Amino acid sequence: MAGDSLGTLFKISNWGESHGKGIGVVIEGCPAGMALTEEDIQPFLDKRRPGQSSITTRRDEADTVEIMSGTVDGITTGTPISLFIRNKDQKSKDYSEMAKLYRPSHADYTYQKKYGIRDVAGGGRSSARVTAGHVAAGAVARKVLTEALGVDIFAYVKSVQDLQLETAPDAINAELIETNLVRCPDQDLAERMVKKIEAARKAGDSLGGVVECQLRDVPVGLGEPVFDKLEADLAKAMLSINASKGFEIGSGFAGTLMQGSTHNDVFFDDEGSVRTKTNYSGGVQGGISNGMPIVFRVAFKPTPTIIREQETVNVDGKDVVFHGRGRHDPCVLPRAVPIVEAMAALVLCDHFLRFKAYKNLFDL
Amino acid sequence: MAGDSLGTLFKISNWGESHGKGIGVVIEGCPAGMALTEEDIQPFLDKRRPGQSSITTRRDEADTVEIMSGTVDGITTGTPISLFIRNKDQKSKDYSEMAKLYRPSHADYTYQKKYGIRDVAGGGRSSARVTAGHVAAGAVARKVLTEALGVDIFAYVKSVQDLQLETAPDAINAELIETNLVRCPDQDLAERMVKKIEAARKAGDSLGGVVECQLRDVPVGLGEPVFDKLEADLAKAMLSINASKGFEIGSGFAGTLMQGSTHNDVFFDDEGSVRTKTNYSGGVQGGISNGMPIVFRVAFKPTPTIIREQETVNVDGKDVVFHGRGRHDPCVLPRAVPIVEAMAALVLCDHFLRFKAYKNLFDL
Amino acid sequence: MAGDSLGTLFKISNWGESHGKGIGVVIEGCPAGMALTEEDIQPFLDKRRPGQSSITTRRDEADTVEIMSGTVDGITTGTPISLFIRNKDQKSKDYSEMAKLYRPSHADYTYQKKYGIRDVAGGGRSSARVTAGHVAAGAVARKVLTEALGVDIFAYVKSVQDLQLETAPDAINAELIETNLVRCPDQDLAERMVKKIEAARKAGDSLGGVVECQLRDVPVGLGEPVFDKLEADLAKAMLSINASKGFEIGSGFAGTLMQGSTHNDVFFDDEGSVRTKTNYSGGVQGGISNGMPIVFRVAFKPTPTIIREQETVNVDGKDVVFHGRGRHDPCVLPRAVPIVEAMAALVLCDHFLRFKAYKNLFDL
Amino acid sequence: MAGDSLGTLFKISNWGESHGKGIGVVIEGCPAGMALTEEDIQPFLDKRRPGQSSITTRRDEADTVEIMSGTVDGITTGTPISLFIRNKDQKSKDYSEMAKLYRPSHADYTYQKKYGIRDVAGGGRSSARVTAGHVAAGAVARKVLTEALGVDIFAYVKSVQDLQLETAPDAINAELIETNLVRCPDQDLAERMVKKIEAARKAGDSLGGVVECQLRDVPVGLGEPVFDKLEADLAKAMLSINASKGFEIGSGFAGTLMQGSTHNDVFFDDEGSVRTKTNYSGGVQGGISNGMPIVFRVAFKPTPTIIREQETVNVDGKDVVFHGRGRHDPCVLPRAVPIVEAMAALVLCDHFLRFKAYKNLFDL
Repeated sequence: MAGDSLGTLFKISNWGESHGKGIGVVIEGCPAGMALTEEDIQPFLDKRRPGQSSITTRRDEADTVEIMSGTVDGITTGTPISLFIRNKDQKSKDYSEMAKLYRPSHADYTYQKKYGIRDVAGGGRSSARVTAGHVAAGAVARKVLTEALGVDIFAYVKSVQDLQLETAPDAINAELIETNLVRCPDQDLAERMVKKIEAARKAGDSLGGVVECQLRDVPVGLGEPVFDKLEADLAKAMLSINASKGFEIGSGFAGTLMQGSTHNDVFFDDEGSVRTKTNYSGGVQGGISNGMPIVFRVAFKPTPTIIREQETVNVDGKDVVFHGRGRHDPCVLPRAVPIVEAMAALVLCDHFLRFKAYKNLFDL
Repeated sequence: MAGDSLGTLFKISNWGESHGKGIGVVIEGCPAGMALTEEDIQPFLDKRRPGQSSITTRRDEADTVEIMSGTVDGITTGTPISLFIRNKDQKSKDYSEMAKLYRPSHADYTYQKKYGIRDVAGGGRSSARVTAGHVAAGAVARKVLTEALGVDIFAYVKSVQDLQLETAPDAINAELIETNLVRCPDQDLAERMVKKIEAARKAGDSLGGVVECQLRDVPVGLGEPVFDKLEADLAKAMLSINASKGFEIGSGFAGTLMQGSTHNDVFFDDEGSVRTKTNYSGGVQGGISNGMPIVFRVAFKPTPTIIREQETVNVDGKDVVFHGRGRHDPCVLPRAVPIVEAMAALVLCDHFLRFKAYKNLFDL
Repeated sequence: MAGDSLGTLFKISNWGESHGKGIGVVIEGCPAGMALTEEDIQPFLDKRRPGQSSITTRRDEADTVEIMSGTVDGITTGTPISLFIRNKDQKSKDYSEMAKLYRPSHADYTYQKKYGIRDVAGGGRSSARVTAGHVAAGAVARKVLTEALGVDIFAYVKSVQDLQLETAPDAINAELIETNLVRCPDQDLAERMVKKIEAARKAGDSLGGVVECQLRDVPVGLGEPVFDKLEADLAKAMLSINASKGFEIGSGFAGTLMQGSTHNDVFFDDEGSVRTKTNYSGGVQGGISNGMPIVFRVAFKPTPTIIREQETVNVDGKDVVFHGRGRHDPCVLPRAVPIVEAMAALVLCDHFLRFKAYKNLFDL
Repeated sequence: MAGDSLGTLFKISNWGESHGKGIGVVIEGCPAGMALTEEDIQPFLDKRRPGQSSITTRRDEADTVEIMSGTVDGITTGTPISLFIRNKDQKSKDYSEMAKLYRPSHADYTYQKKYGIRDVAGGGRSSARVTAGHVAAGAVARKVLTEALGVDIFAYVKSVQDLQLETAPDAINAELIETNLVRCPDQDLAERMVKKIEAARKAGDSLGGVVECQLRDVPVGLGEPVFDKLEADLAKAMLSINASKGFEIGSGFAGTLMQGSTHNDVFFDDEGSVRTKTNYSGGVQGGISNGMPIVFRVAFKPTPTIIREQETVNVDGKDVVFHGRGRHDPCVLPRAVPIVEAMAALVLCDHFLRFKAYKNLFDL
């Protein structure tokens, strides 16, 4: 199958390129009867858009979303919702040098070899600009989840290089996330992260880090084993984000250092509700949500665009040297936050509808 | 959609329970004309089956595979290949206690809440026994990849708790993997791992760890962005394996501690072939294989079955104490190795067919 | 994608060959909590099985179904239901002549050319024997529809060659269907049909005809335009049945002879219910069920197996003459009835779950 | 799953409404390297667009297509091709009466009941205007098929009510199709059809009919049994077209009047090629193309919009009378011709890529 669609009952199809006419996304399967206007979507795009601050790329895109179909008088009709974000900042930059070589750790080489052709301007389809569509669609998914289920979704920067947030997931104050440029819910740490990113920018270098995401008040029962486990679909969604290199849920890789006797999450009767004392499971057991907060992390590599002289090969396979120029995003982490949230919302909304399809059909 | 199928062009549907009649898998889309008998599949099942050694569960299953359809005179016909592994060791154990409570960090609670009913015996469908089907199907996928492409797939135990293999991926000697019970290609380390696992068994406790997997000689071009990136589909497949909690490719989480200037993989002309000097990308760029070895890791939690007294709740939501008994697998890592390989083969084979569908249609 | 699966939320995967070990079908997405044993399925297989009477093939198959997974204590668990029908009557017939040529209007030639190999015995995968799996799975779908919705499904022979039932769909007495060998709810006509079929058998020839099917008490709202319209998915399911050559719903081809002013189905207030005075629409409008009976017809060609001398080509493409021998089914119509019902149930059950996924989420 | 997508490897997602901003279609999986501009698509839209002649609706839409993504310098890049057709003729008509009632044999009632809301203007999503997207996407599919395979696709009006073309499929002169307004390759008959349609228009009434379609020079081997048979997917595609009520391939319903001995298509050696003397199979056997022309027919009902007084119910379920007004299409047949061709091209292109995925992997 073609790989530009995601989801089954709540399904998105993404299209568009970095320097083409724009980015679009078609949402199939949004339930009818929900109030929806551009104002429900725009704030999330504003969080993702470039040019927000001194620590993100200076490419300036207004990223204004337009609803092209699927609503009447501001209410969803159950038919496809087409969203369009027109590209504005298509500088007539000279891409002739870039057309002749493959930038290290970008997708230039693989796209050229796979398709026999590539859209050089801004990386074409391989650009992270396509995630504008993810964020727009994710805003719709989030609205479904919020209004129908009351689910709460929030992500934040957990680390920038070696600067790591030590706050436990259940102690995070989500209201602090947007109080600083880097979207880290610890003001002091955030300041140090900003300084580190600014230093990398000055050095023409780049940094990676980790985003942590929480989904709270998710009902018990979402996830379709044995393959479409909730964490499996989350992992796929996260690894499809540009520059991501890893995913872990609950205790993740660190959990491998524990023992079963301490890692097991003990169930207890919390005044009539079944809860677990710890949450190393990260809110899923056997691929199905267990009602505890879903907590996962995504690793993002240092962005490959750096303003340095680098060795590489040209399109004839010969060694060459090239020098990166212009705008660059020294650290994608702050802008990755709304993308991670959006992808999580898309996965969760799809699983919610799948859950709903089968639920309560036969009484037991 | 129902969640028991995986893949598009090379697709598997898994069925069966721990203590039911057996585990089965139906493979759709295996190309015609390949020699295939049970002997191509059985060795991989033998690597996964329980009761192999002192460090795995003592449940004794012969795990004999039977090809039920899809071949004639030992040659695939292009029609569905149905594989069946009959359950043998269905001890008439007393599950009446287990039926009344939810074991910590198992899927008892979530299955009960999701489906309103659960198969108590051995965990039913949530048991890792279903991975016997994955391994059987993976053997067929691997044969397609080996014969049609010459791909080489191998996994090994990278760590058991804090005992970690330090050998770099490109220095691994794959021939050492099967020389020890724990499937770690470092004999000394393997011995220490075995001791650690045996100690855990004696203590009635369990251990987790990390499996690393390599796919070598994969052609350039496999992977379908922007959602069905090769690493995204690998991540999904790995997170669908029982007890897995994390996935990372190439530099993964550790790569977030680097900088772009050192993390970028420099292309060079290797006597006519384009290769990279380092492989922090892990063999994929932009979601597409770049011809370098694909290297990824999967985190497995300490198995939740322990022979200890544990607190939990019963089916009425009341606090109770129960004591685990009987057979248990103190560390799933050795047996996870063939499962990781199988899932990797399934994903790769599916992407190979997808690649083939579009390739070389129009000359440029 | 591989083509042996059908459905999305209620999904089946079919496997097996005419003379292999058996026919199987895996059902994913059957809701949990429904009582289900072999006794719910067997009666439908008995209606389809060969050797029932003088007017069907004398191949004798018991066609005993076995539930291999997905239930516990006779209740569905929401996990895959694997059904198996072992082949019994695998006569060690000599297929060496058949291996050397392509029978006219069979799939011998196309399978050979497509796959480069074919299973000669009994037509292998191209045999109508695979529909035993459809019928078994359809029985499960029908039970879901009956118990959860109260839908009534019945089909019958509308015509055998030029002998055509003139009774209007709403005047059919479904209780008469099983009173005769040919499954036509008109006793006199049925007798003439039987005689015609017996005459064809004696002449070594074969006959075609039309099956009509009705789905009554289907709720308003099933069907997912603009592509997965209910009639579109029914059409696909029916054209996938062996020997079918046409599908029409409501007025069908005959409706093209009418005018809009007489063809339009006028809505009226039927004591509080909205109904239509006529039902040329056949129970669907805009791809969605409208609450009226769904009525459609399927055309089946005269079976290609005849006991005659026929010209054809051999595997080298040279003209040859061959003589059909042995058992043959002079008219598939009576046995097509349960297959049409089963495919209709599968489509309807899938659409019911899809409908349920989206329904009543936001109040308007 | 949501139902606005079709296809697997060559996949389209359709969006838009009759009186919204426009109609769009996203094509995933178009192979890279094919020349493609708006000029390849526009001629097909021109054939479908309203306002062409005295016998079609007078709604005047330029139906200008814009390629929004997926090409660079007029060459496909292998990434999604987004096509957009802006709505122009959105008359600010008064829909207040229509909002209060359900037009007979339209989708007003079913959409309202299914979604709880409907877009009244022009029928919203249920309008045949959505087929503009099908035709645009079909033009791209056709180009792939023409350039890569040399397939020839053409459809024509076979009948308008009782005026029926008697020419056998193999005797059709495709060059005559576009010589008359009604797209019937028989000039005299076409004139009579035009007169009949004009008479119906004057009477405020409407007519139905049959479109026949041929796919020539299709390679042997396309189609994926046992469910995704080529004719099954064609049937689904055709029954998804607005106003279609039936599909038949080869001999179809008329073939049920024949006997096996005359209906069987005898293979013969045609100077080294295997062909059949007759083509009652319609170019498919066992669900797979056999190299003979694929010939099928689609029945279209008389359009439900008529300029007459009609009884119906209002949104409260009460009997009312309403009078149709304004523009109407007295016979959709001429405009259905390019839609049928487009849907056929989409199905065939998808099956071609599926065929290609598996073909020639192992030599036999």
